[in-house]
Amino acid sequence: MKNKLSSLINPRSVALIGATERSGSVGSGLVENLWSGRHKRKLFWVNPNLKEIKGERTYHSILEITEPIDLAVVAVPAEVVPQVVQEAVSKKVGSIIVISAGFAETDSAGRQRQDEIVNLTRRSGIPLLGPNCLGLLRPPIELNASFAPFNPPSGGIAFISQSGALMNSVIDRSGLENYGFSLLISYGNGADVSLVDLLWLADRDQSTKVIAIYLEGLDEGREFMEAAREISSRKPIIILKAGRTELGQRAASSHTASLAGSDQVYQAAFKQSGVFSASSLEELFDWAKALEWLPRIENGLAILTNGGGMGVLATDQAVDQGLLMPELSEATRNRLQKSDSFAEETIFKNPLDIIGDADTERYRQAIETLLTQSDVHSLVVIQTKQTMTNIQENMEVIAQAAQRWPKKALISVCLPGRLSQMGIKWLEEQRIPNYSDPVRALRAARVLTN
Amino acid sequence: MKNKLSSLINPRSVALIGATERSGSVGSGLVENLWSGRHKRKLFWVNPNLKEIKGERTYHSILEITEPIDLAVVAVPAEVVPQVVQEAVSKKVGSIIVISAGFAETDSAGRQRQDEIVNLTRRSGIPLLGPNCLGLLRPPIELNASFAPFNPPSGGIAFISQSGALMNSVIDRSGLENYGFSLLISYGNGADVSLVDLLWLADRDQSTKVIAIYLEGLDEGREFMEAAREISSRKPIIILKAGRTELGQRAASSHTASLAGSDQVYQAAFKQSGVFSASSLEELFDWAKALEWLPRIENGLAILTNGGGMGVLATDQAVDQGLLMPELSEATRNRLQKSDSFAEETIFKNPLDIIGDADTERYRQAIETLLTQSDVHSLVVIQTKQTMTNIQENMEVIAQAAQRWPKKALISVCLPGRLSQMGIKWLEEQRIPNYSDPVRALRAARVLTN
Repeated sequence: MKNKLSSLINPRSVALIGATERSGSVGSGLVENLWSGRHKRKLFWVNPNLKEIKGERTYHSILEITEPIDLAVVAVPAEVVPQVVQEAVSKKVGSIIVISAGFAETDSAGRQRQDEIVNLTRRSGIPLLGPNCLGLLRPPIELNASFAPFNPPSGGIAFISQSGALMNSVIDRSGLENYGFSLLISYGNGADVSLVDLLWLADRDQSTKVIAIYLEGLDEGREFMEAAREISSRKPIIILKAGRTELGQRAASSHTASLAGSDQVYQAAFKQSGVFSASSLEELFDWAKALEWLPRIENGLAILTNGGGMGVLATDQAVDQGLLMPELSEATRNRLQKSDSFAEETIFKNPLDIIGDADTERYRQAIETLLTQSDVHSLVVIQTKQTMTNIQENMEVIAQAAQRWPKKALISVCLPGRLSQMGIKWLEEQRIPNYSDPVRALRAARVLTN
Repeated sequence: MKNKLSSLINPRSVALIGATERSGSVGSGLVENLWSGRHKRKLFWVNPNLKEIKGERTYHSILEITEPIDLAVVAVPAEVVPQVVQEAVSKKVGSIIVISAGFAETDSAGRQRQDEIVNLTRRSGIPLLGPNCLGLLRPPIELNASFAPFNPPSGGIAFISQSGALMNSVIDRSGLENYGFSLLISYGNGADVSLVDLLWLADRDQSTKVIAIYLEGLDEGREFMEAAREISSRKPIIILKAGRTELGQRAASSHTASLAGSDQVYQAAFKQSGVFSASSLEELFDWAKALEWLPRIENGLAILTNGGGMGVLATDQAVDQGLLMPELSEATRNRLQKSDSFAEETIFKNPLDIIGDADTERYRQAIETLLTQSDVHSLVVIQTKQTMTNIQENMEVIAQAAQRWPKKALISVCLPGRLSQMGIKWLEEQRIPNYSDPVRALRAARVLTN
């Protein structure tokens, strides 16, 4: 399987079977998305009822196309899919994505139909993604073979999802966030190309730095664990497992036709395989951006704040997460005490509260001194918006320190607000994560130490 | 104490001692904020070194002012505070806020200074808020006696915080959120006016619908519990308790001089008093807006989604939170089956997955039918952004249903994204909460049932 997937994620030519311009349809979403990458590869529209789409001719059938096709994308009613797949197989396409729903996730007739198409493709050794999926996106090469609402930004996160709808929401949200994607793959029923295949694919993909997965169930536990164990030693893997409860499992089994096992079994398997288990969608991406942008570090954290309360909340969470907070060394305390930047009432300890009137110079002195201490491997910098707080300038100091100490992890906590949102955006463009809540920041700091 | 606090939150005249226009100073922040409410009350600037501020004369001392003063706000260096407070007492002001830091939170000299001013005011029966605090805001009457960065929106949440810095961040964030405040009070060291006094104040305040508290420590446990038990039967109280861990407690004790007790004791006391205990700042306001905008309900939840994955995540969390998900009654199923809005493959159960191509009419049919079932008391409506999803129109359907079923709680889950953020803002302006993650939505749904 490994090598055969290259035509799936790097196609020089794509045929869309079921292409249409009917507004609001899956087929027209695919047309628009594929069209956005038309300078990168050849596109062919297949629809027996239309003459042209986007000013290009359409074909009655894929068999009419004379040039070789690397990837066939199928978006026709379920009943027609077996015939269309048969034609794609005859055409000897490199790989197939079946977007259409109406297979094993519905009823026994659907399951039979699914078996039929898999038999066809497997006999010919053609990998098939889906059916019942959103499709595949690879932003770095402008490949969008999906009906997602728009093109998400390019970045280092590979997101693999059983659910296509969930992937759509993730894409919509990414338009407001500062992380981006190397790959987005919805595998739906996973009839042929499986999560394990996609794990290996993401592992080989050089743009992928972190693998984030939304998972409802798994049919190939042992293969998954072996792959995850090997790959997670090179690239972090984070999984959001849905269907943890019995009721949730029942809901899951009705929509992607996968068997869900006990949550304890899954959690134990994840742990043994070095996989991070996120507890919400927000956490999945909180962690993904930290793992993409920051180095993995040893356990040893300092907290810097201009607001005592936020420092206390962060400290509580550090303890909960098993993060060690080393005491400030004599050298560190001396250096801080010698500076004339700090207010008289400052107490030099970890967490370090530099008080509400902290200006940028005080932040700089504190950040640089704390990072000089050898057992401080990560630093959480908290800013509450006070009169003296220049968030943009403080963010620049954080970014400079991150450049100077590339092996340490700097994490920012600043609530997005009217006065802070520009600075937050700027910081994340420098690939330093910001979190809107100390709890979220410290949970992200923890995964860097594992 | 109860009646004396009226001059604090409803002053007809305010004197600011330490008024200045020096940019970036606490005093100038106070000038600007008080000035924004100048049409509502008389303002007097006190500063012996200046002739005028904002084109108005300044006074050398509060004793120079001939008119009565309801509220004196003090923002001068700690060393000068006792003298200034003595003068305010001689002037017979109604109440005093000491913004200045440098008291019990620092050292024994500071504690002595704090005792000194409290002795002065208590002898005269004048309530004193602070010292070491951000001040007080009451948006509905345009009172801003604080150095907060701007005026937060008006609404039904009273936020009481030991930490002023934290309050500033909350205010900054509120500029991007859709909830608003009836009161914001930072009580700092709580030397005289205590959390318990402020609880009663918020209880009597007619604009206040929900009381949200950030707390580090408490000196008057029994009084607090008695007050909380009584008040929480009328208005929900949510507390974010910091200093849960030993390290967190130590960090807390150094900045507000309050004694922190064991977390178990606090949590037990909260539970007995009917207080909701939030685990993060985000959760504090997630819950506050739900409790302000929605009715309290019996346990019985339906989940509606156009994306199976989000439905599964929500169902897991409902189970975790002890929320009951009744099965769809025969009447409900019949009604849904009779409608021609639903796709053939729809399975009519709770959670109800109306599939990715759900349009607004399908959402409407599902919402109205589910709410007609008598044991469905709350409904979580999930939208993932698909081609057919018209988020704005769906939000309008949700708002209409909320009007028709005012005793049921409707909660929206829609990830803020490029295509969804306008609809989310509109919905929340109708006082229906939206959450960006099913986990957060279901945790908020839970507090409505208690």
